[in-house]
Amino acid sequence: MIAPARYIDHHCHAVARGDLERPAVEALLSESHQPAVPGCTQFDKPLGLLVRKHCAPLLDLEPFCSPEDYMERRLALGCEAVNRRLLRAADMTSLLIDSGHRSDSLLGLPAMAEFSGAITREVVRVEAVMEEVAREADSPAALLAAFSEALHERARDAVGLKSIVAYRVTFDIDQTAPSQDAVLSAAGTWLKANEREGWHRLEDPVLIRHALFAALDLCNERKFPLQLHTGVGDSDVIMPRCDPTHFTPFIMAAEAKAVPLTLLHCYPFEREAGWLAEVFSNVYYDVGFTLNFTGALARRALSDAMEMGPFFKQLYSTDAFGLAELHYLGRVQFDRFLSEVLDGWLAAGDCTSADAERIAGMIAHANAERIYPL
Amino acid sequence: MIAPARYIDHHCHAVARGDLERPAVEALLSESHQPAVPGCTQFDKPLGLLVRKHCAPLLDLEPFCSPEDYMERRLALGCEAVNRRLLRAADMTSLLIDSGHRSDSLLGLPAMAEFSGAITREVVRVEAVMEEVAREADSPAALLAAFSEALHERARDAVGLKSIVAYRVTFDIDQTAPSQDAVLSAAGTWLKANEREGWHRLEDPVLIRHALFAALDLCNERKFPLQLHTGVGDSDVIMPRCDPTHFTPFIMAAEAKAVPLTLLHCYPFEREAGWLAEVFSNVYYDVGFTLNFTGALARRALSDAMEMGPFFKQLYSTDAFGLAELHYLGRVQFDRFLSEVLDGWLAAGDCTSADAERIAGMIAHANAERIYPL
Amino acid sequence: MIAPARYIDHHCHAVARGDLERPAVEALLSESHQPAVPGCTQFDKPLGLLVRKHCAPLLDLEPFCSPEDYMERRLALGCEAVNRRLLRAADMTSLLIDSGHRSDSLLGLPAMAEFSGAITREVVRVEAVMEEVAREADSPAALLAAFSEALHERARDAVGLKSIVAYRVTFDIDQTAPSQDAVLSAAGTWLKANEREGWHRLEDPVLIRHALFAALDLCNERKFPLQLHTGVGDSDVIMPRCDPTHFTPFIMAAEAKAVPLTLLHCYPFEREAGWLAEVFSNVYYDVGFTLNFTGALARRALSDAMEMGPFFKQLYSTDAFGLAELHYLGRVQFDRFLSEVLDGWLAAGDCTSADAERIAGMIAHANAERIYPL
Repeated sequence: MIAPARYIDHHCHAVARGDLERPAVEALLSESHQPAVPGCTQFDKPLGLLVRKHCAPLLDLEPFCSPEDYMERRLALGCEAVNRRLLRAADMTSLLIDSGHRSDSLLGLPAMAEFSGAITREVVRVEAVMEEVAREADSPAALLAAFSEALHERARDAVGLKSIVAYRVTFDIDQTAPSQDAVLSAAGTWLKANEREGWHRLEDPVLIRHALFAALDLCNERKFPLQLHTGVGDSDVIMPRCDPTHFTPFIMAAEAKAVPLTLLHCYPFEREAGWLAEVFSNVYYDVGFTLNFTGALARRALSDAMEMGPFFKQLYSTDAFGLAELHYLGRVQFDRFLSEVLDGWLAAGDCTSADAERIAGMIAHANAERIYPL
Repeated sequence: MIAPARYIDHHCHAVARGDLERPAVEALLSESHQPAVPGCTQFDKPLGLLVRKHCAPLLDLEPFCSPEDYMERRLALGCEAVNRRLLRAADMTSLLIDSGHRSDSLLGLPAMAEFSGAITREVVRVEAVMEEVAREADSPAALLAAFSEALHERARDAVGLKSIVAYRVTFDIDQTAPSQDAVLSAAGTWLKANEREGWHRLEDPVLIRHALFAALDLCNERKFPLQLHTGVGDSDVIMPRCDPTHFTPFIMAAEAKAVPLTLLHCYPFEREAGWLAEVFSNVYYDVGFTLNFTGALARRALSDAMEMGPFFKQLYSTDAFGLAELHYLGRVQFDRFLSEVLDGWLAAGDCTSADAERIAGMIAHANAERIYPL
Repeated sequence: MIAPARYIDHHCHAVARGDLERPAVEALLSESHQPAVPGCTQFDKPLGLLVRKHCAPLLDLEPFCSPEDYMERRLALGCEAVNRRLLRAADMTSLLIDSGHRSDSLLGLPAMAEFSGAITREVVRVEAVMEEVAREADSPAALLAAFSEALHERARDAVGLKSIVAYRVTFDIDQTAPSQDAVLSAAGTWLKANEREGWHRLEDPVLIRHALFAALDLCNERKFPLQLHTGVGDSDVIMPRCDPTHFTPFIMAAEAKAVPLTLLHCYPFEREAGWLAEVFSNVYYDVGFTLNFTGALARRALSDAMEMGPFFKQLYSTDAFGLAELHYLGRVQFDRFLSEVLDGWLAAGDCTSADAERIAGMIAHANAERIYPL
């Protein structure tokens, strides 16, 4: 069994404020915008089995209790106790928290620090910053100026930036820096549409490219990474265009600026991520999200991620959002399956125990400690 | 070992009429349009080993007899005995049979019911219906009217529809409903080409989109699923464009009409299918075809299919075509590899035996029983 | 443990001339154009563990010695002893060597034969031939004539041709034979750019298509294969467009001319390669490169390659370039993981020992002996 000295969850979100009824918990156990089929439950999938196996005992229940018993006990204990128990059990040294998605419904960083006992640091989502300033901007030029200022301001205490370009326009796009004119024109179109037809989320590829290149400059200046959401995501994503190998030109632009890019989740492109980490000096990756959602069969995703990529390029994350169960399960899954892989290597004489220990430490904390200003 | 109460093969074809010589059997053991390399045989691949291992004993031969002995015995027994033995051994409760491909050379549903002992129900292939009426139509308007009428008529006793859109034009197409004008114009072009140059199979994306949206309406009305051929198929298919995640806009249109879509085969996109089933409430999937063609290594495809998707979204099928061996092997493979996965989970404490039993039952029959009007 | 009578490495390169310092060895252990992250080493990845495990003992070191000790000993022994020990240990019958990439810095075929004890035969890279003649050509017509002549001349003693079309323009291109006019025009553009702006490598899709169809004709005439670099490659490749299933129209053109195509490496498209080998009578494939670079986890790539494709279509290769370690490790990895797969089949009763022996022999040598004029 691996035993790294520390764990850095380099990409997660906070947990939900307040107590959650079953429909809310089921929704957070799923990537779907819809509830499960009538008569069916999100507990009937690999992630659901994990919750019943590993989280139930932390709430004083038998493993594999029924979803009904689990939900009843969860509500009886109350969210504070539930969050404290599960987050403490995850036992992280640091949580790097993406604050840019539905943050009104989630706990803030101080509360997350208190419940988890971990140091909490912020990662700023660049599209969220642009959307924020767009609500106030009265001209394209004002939008761009406000974006630049807000990005620097918001990033002051942050340890990295994040882009969800693949969510919004996929990776299969023009990857050059857009001209100032093109950006101003796109900003004007967006602002006008917002004025005439109500709020539109940021989906313009020119504006997103502008945000990406602004992010690269800031990351270069601050010597911290840009995180890139990769692969699985919202249901309206066209997955093949979210294959990170489509983003090669941008990766090269970031490499030229010595900006580490950290590819998040990567499902179903774990092997592609490992290959990018092999060929580009600035590419890092994790299989957070994936380890939770693939449950008892998560060894495959972890093995795929480890089959080619350098050990000094892999990171630990959970991508947990809303439910403290996901923070805890990410740790359980990582420990179990990384141990299975490394124990297999030791048994077959494929590395020494010093190698195994070092590899686990690199992934659990040392690589993150090298690239993030913690 | 799993032991579901019933099995519904929700997607298969009938077996060939009459006795088959070796070249015909080899052709049906392959997706190729060509015979094997001279001096080589289709028995020299994973599927061929399966036939020699599992089917030979049902024909009173030793396992792993030579292909020559197998073929000699198969002909000596005669097709009726062979079909009866193999189909009975598959031991299905129901066979949902796609009647739209080379049906002249295959047995009808009553004969399949008699040989197999299963209830047989029809699934209507929408492109085949359009091709059928196109042979008689004397104008675009007549074609569309005849298609609509024939589809309803043919579907009267059916339990679902099927589209091979990915075979013909891939999933990487415009996925909006075409205008009436566009459809009439495309129909005119096709009819004229048929008249001038002889028969062309249906390959026009506008007509196929028309057929798909007509199918959605009928499925909505009849509350039964639309099956979608996914991934592997004819040799002229450009595989990356048959990734089902390209079909997201159409999946959303079907979800809005509460029409279940069942993704068939899915090779090599099992993980993508599982993800779609996770994010869309109406997506179901199977790994029929794949389990047979990946032989002794089929555990990987089955595991991939099970790693993320809800258990209430997975289906049993064989995609068997022409050879009763394929109906039987589909059952053998499913039982073996689902048992291996679930026994692994039980051994590692990843689910209870009640969970394992329930999961096997959902996939073998309960999910199909919920979405098909059986 | 498998024990084929012979091994044909149907795709490899020669080893570097002269002694190599650590940065040069690290660069050859990587597909990257950049050195590893400062403070990190290419020994810290799956391939690095393989070198420390298997190659160290051949240089009289303990397995898993430090990279420093390994490099010190490698230099002390000198390149001749290192090459001789590692290449002899690989114990190949024949090496089919691609002579078209950085050949000035590599040993020639006679030296490779002497060090390895194997017969060495040449495979001619068609793009390299065109680049060679372009340096001398003074008109488009002269370029084409010189290319045709040089290709025939260079291929006289060769056993096959090779194209790196996927490296240069991906497989996602127009796959028809270009017109003579289009080829002349493209040649003119390239020559003029070279004259005006200095040397440009061959990247014009029209010229590459011309080279491909010229190669098909020559392969048809000589009855030898065309090798196609597939999947992983230079860092500037857009991977999804290097999926070999994009090349279906060209594969069909080659099938019509009875030219075997051998897909090389295939990472991460092993399953796609196996499917193409199943549906096209002329498609062969290997997982050379991949077995080395996926280290202790290489069983997955080998299993994926074997799960569907006919056994009479798979080939042995290493894709070793520059380092004799890679020639030796390719053999170690193949023997280990093919044995693991086949021993697993034997243990589960999935084939007979005669089958296992025959399958290993087909992949190690018999298939190559059938399609190459050795």
